[in-house]
Amino acid sequence: MDDLLVRLREHLPADAVITDPDITGGYAHDMASFCAAGTPAVVVLPRTVEQVQHVMRTATALRVPVVPQGARTGLSGAANASDGCIVLSLVKMDRILEVNPVDRVAVVEPGVINAVLSREVQKLGLYYPPDPSSWEMCTIGGNIGTASGGLCCVKYGVTAEYVLGLEVVLADGRLMSTGRRTAKGVAGYDLTRLFVGSEGSLGIVVKAVLALRPSPPPQLVLAAEFATAAAACDAVVRIMERGHTPSLLELMDRTTIQAVNRMAHMGLPDSTEALLLAAFDTPDPAADLAAVAELCTAAGATQVVPAEDAAESELLLQARRLSLTALETIKSATMIDDVCVPRSKLAAMIERTSAIAAKYDLTIGVCAHAGDGNTHPVVCFDAADEDESRRARESFDEIMALGLELGGTITGEHGVGVLKKEWLARELGPVGIEMQRAVKHAFDPLGLLNPGKLF
Amino acid sequence: MDDLLVRLREHLPADAVITDPDITGGYAHDMASFCAAGTPAVVVLPRTVEQVQHVMRTATALRVPVVPQGARTGLSGAANASDGCIVLSLVKMDRILEVNPVDRVAVVEPGVINAVLSREVQKLGLYYPPDPSSWEMCTIGGNIGTASGGLCCVKYGVTAEYVLGLEVVLADGRLMSTGRRTAKGVAGYDLTRLFVGSEGSLGIVVKAVLALRPSPPPQLVLAAEFATAAAACDAVVRIMERGHTPSLLELMDRTTIQAVNRMAHMGLPDSTEALLLAAFDTPDPAADLAAVAELCTAAGATQVVPAEDAAESELLLQARRLSLTALETIKSATMIDDVCVPRSKLAAMIERTSAIAAKYDLTIGVCAHAGDGNTHPVVCFDAADEDESRRARESFDEIMALGLELGGTITGEHGVGVLKKEWLARELGPVGIEMQRAVKHAFDPLGLLNPGKLF
Ligand SMILES: Cc1cc2nc3c(=O)[nH]c(=O)nc-3n(C[C@H](O)[C@H](O)[C@H](O)COP(=O)(O)OP(=O)(O)OC[C@H]3O[C@@H](n4cnc5c(N)ncnc54)[C@H](O)[C@@H]3O)c2cc1C
Ligand SMILES: Cc1cc2nc3c(=O)[nH]c(=O)nc-3n(C[C@H](O)[C@H](O)[C@H](O)COP(=O)(O)OP(=O)(O)OC[C@H]3O[C@@H](n4cnc5c(N)ncnc54)[C@H](O)[C@@H]3O)c2cc1C
Repeated sequence: MDDLLVRLREHLPADAVITDPDITGGYAHDMASFCAAGTPAVVVLPRTVEQVQHVMRTATALRVPVVPQGARTGLSGAANASDGCIVLSLVKMDRILEVNPVDRVAVVEPGVINAVLSREVQKLGLYYPPDPSSWEMCTIGGNIGTASGGLCCVKYGVTAEYVLGLEVVLADGRLMSTGRRTAKGVAGYDLTRLFVGSEGSLGIVVKAVLALRPSPPPQLVLAAEFATAAAACDAVVRIMERGHTPSLLELMDRTTIQAVNRMAHMGLPDSTEALLLAAFDTPDPAADLAAVAELCTAAGATQVVPAEDAAESELLLQARRLSLTALETIKSATMIDDVCVPRSKLAAMIERTSAIAAKYDLTIGVCAHAGDGNTHPVVCFDAADEDESRRARESFDEIMALGLELGGTITGEHGVGVLKKEWLARELGPVGIEMQRAVKHAFDPLGLLNPGKLF
Repeated sequence: MDDLLVRLREHLPADAVITDPDITGGYAHDMASFCAAGTPAVVVLPRTVEQVQHVMRTATALRVPVVPQGARTGLSGAANASDGCIVLSLVKMDRILEVNPVDRVAVVEPGVINAVLSREVQKLGLYYPPDPSSWEMCTIGGNIGTASGGLCCVKYGVTAEYVLGLEVVLADGRLMSTGRRTAKGVAGYDLTRLFVGSEGSLGIVVKAVLALRPSPPPQLVLAAEFATAAAACDAVVRIMERGHTPSLLELMDRTTIQAVNRMAHMGLPDSTEALLLAAFDTPDPAADLAAVAELCTAAGATQVVPAEDAAESELLLQARRLSLTALETIKSATMIDDVCVPRSKLAAMIERTSAIAAKYDLTIGVCAHAGDGNTHPVVCFDAADEDESRRARESFDEIMALGLELGGTITGEHGVGVLKKEWLARELGPVGIEMQRAVKHAFDPLGLLNPGKLF
């Protein structure tokens, strides 16, 4: 341990190496509850690529595990410390190095906050689509680590679609470039995409070339109320089947609506069973919304209210973005599922989730990126109540089993971390897991990078 | 060898195992000239997943190399046979298993022809964007093997963006599922994307789940003539900088235009130095084309002619799609570069390519997916002329060096194969290549899958 600190300090400024347990304790875990987290030996906050390389060389020399971290807003424990590890926090590497409107790329360090980048490129008429609801806090490095999604995915896809090239410090400290800054490129295996979603287990991202798009027109949002979740899902099916491409298509159930109203006094219609938000950022969003309003009505909407303007639209989005946070206030603890099913199975997913809530006598609020079939059933429980905690864990698991049964995946965007390790094995099967491990071994033969995550 | 055939035939129908050298010879190489190709021991044409597994088990047991093949339209020798190999042609596995308009997915076998799938999904109002100019011949398996692009990429991206899930037979015959059929999913490393562009060197794709989009409105094309390639590139920069999203943005130089006219009597304006084709498939393409026409004029276009209707648009696209084939008729042989540069460097790329042509006293026609910065300089030469052949090879290489110097990649869409092996190493550097090899080793420890390609 002393040796570790001495060696680390050889090439790191004093304030970049933190050992005060009062401070390092704050770096122990991300925002997932109920995930094991150890006690880090040290927290390192490098500012340069060379410093990151030095950390990894030291870690390899001394066989010390390393846990990379962004803003620790993750919801699967993927950034949780393990005992005696080096926490490698990239938050101080937060420069936007370049924004190029002709090439439509941004080059950034990993610690850049998602919303900071979004606002910066917007000044140049550009758009970085990936928009997790945590965007004001989370980092691009963390977004890459988890392959983050958000509200815009139904039209614009997830983080993976926007990562063109990376610089990565490998477990042994060597620097590797992957990918490109060109629009296309097929030179060798796509290691860039392999790193996206790898949860810090293959290498440390120290630079990223991101694809940008031209800014779309401001989006206009419509809110439709339904007497049942099934009717709302039917509307989703109709909208997608008709070939519409909304810029978002989100669902909030009654529990979620009420929680948001309680927390933020949003005045959402909280006597309705399901609220669907649809938006378009097309040249004529009002016309598109009118067509969608008709489909909602045909699916049985009890009320359809288009936002009057951009400000009202933004308010509705804020309400949706608050959903997870609001649901967390219902009880002392939550477990947040992230099951994604084929959108034709969305109604079955939501209805059967509510049967699971009844079976376990629990409150499970559901918000969903409905256009993607990506649901977030949030199991609310009292952590002090042992029996309720057990029921919470069981229902959380049963929801993942349901997702797999419906042809879906256990995680649409939050990742596996420590929370869903066993479930990853179930989803991928033995051959899949073996090949995943083989890839891990190819990059990290000593198993030092974020150990205990994923598998 | 006898043992090989006996074993193969144990679980394969007689007509699926071909040894007649007159026939197997036809499977020796793809459409790249000047790439070494060996003599296959046998050509196998399986019709089921189990048959593919049997082939791979046999190959592993007897340590026989296997070269997967689609339609052999590849342009880098990636599908070329090696001596004594099993050529594993997937063309008989050509069923479209499912098209689902709500989930917007198609599930296909690898031998399905790109254009067949495109037409099939179109009947349901859906669109499978990847459209290599060879689309009437090439297979989805080959498209996945090379991560194919095409004309639509500037708006819709390449094959990688449309592969959600795969079933893959591994080198030892085990079957692995990767990915998903949902819109999103982050369960484990993205092995699906790793397979896309892996040129048959990691496993055999036997099934693919592909993402579809709603059919866009028919595209309208505009043709703009320029007195210099630089002016045409300037127009490209202006169009992209202004935030336009054309559905294609293609460039043909004078050599290409003349070759196409000679071959197909298209009546293209062959006194112009560069022809830019731009198209929109937006709700009001005429308005978008008008804006682009203005930008072209501002960049110095000598003539700007919007197509009158869909039929005229299609004719212009056909001309563009014929480019490579037409350039091949200029001399007895060609070497086709595929350099992709940041689009801000397109003018430099094309101008300096023409300096290379002058330096080596060769005809090098250029067509380009200009909106992506992806150029295809086609080096035309007389294969019987030793000196000209040497100059062709040298200029071919110098063009790749130029691409790298301009911050680009040696291959935007045609892949590495045997043609660009040395150049892959230059582009990726020693650490990159070492990690690529490590990944290869993880999947194919005996080195049986498409040996001699990529590295
Ligand atoms: C209120 C709330 C709303 C949310 N909404 C969404 C949402 O809509 N969509 C969504 O997808 N997620 C959402 N999340 C989850 C979370 O915000 C995302 O997963 C986010 O991408 C995490 O970023 P981070 O910077 O906090 O990373 P962290 O949590 O610190 O780390 C995430 C993972 O990335 C790794 N990592 C971090 N930086 C690097 C690096 N430089 N190199 C290598 N590995 C690295 C870590 O080891 C870890 O495995 C939400 C979270 C909260 C709290
Ligand atoms: C006239 C012409 C125009 C072209 N235009 C374009 C263009 O615009 N854009 C573009 O990107 N390309 C273009 N190409 C190149 C070529 O058509 C593409 O690379 C195409 O994707 C190859 O498909 P194929 O079925 O012919 O595959 P093949 O050439 O048979 O194989 C290509 C690679 O994929 C591997 N492979 C094939 N099937 C499988 C499988 N089932 N599992 C694993 N590996 C497999 C092979 O081993 C090989 O490495 C063009 C070619 C021609 C001749």
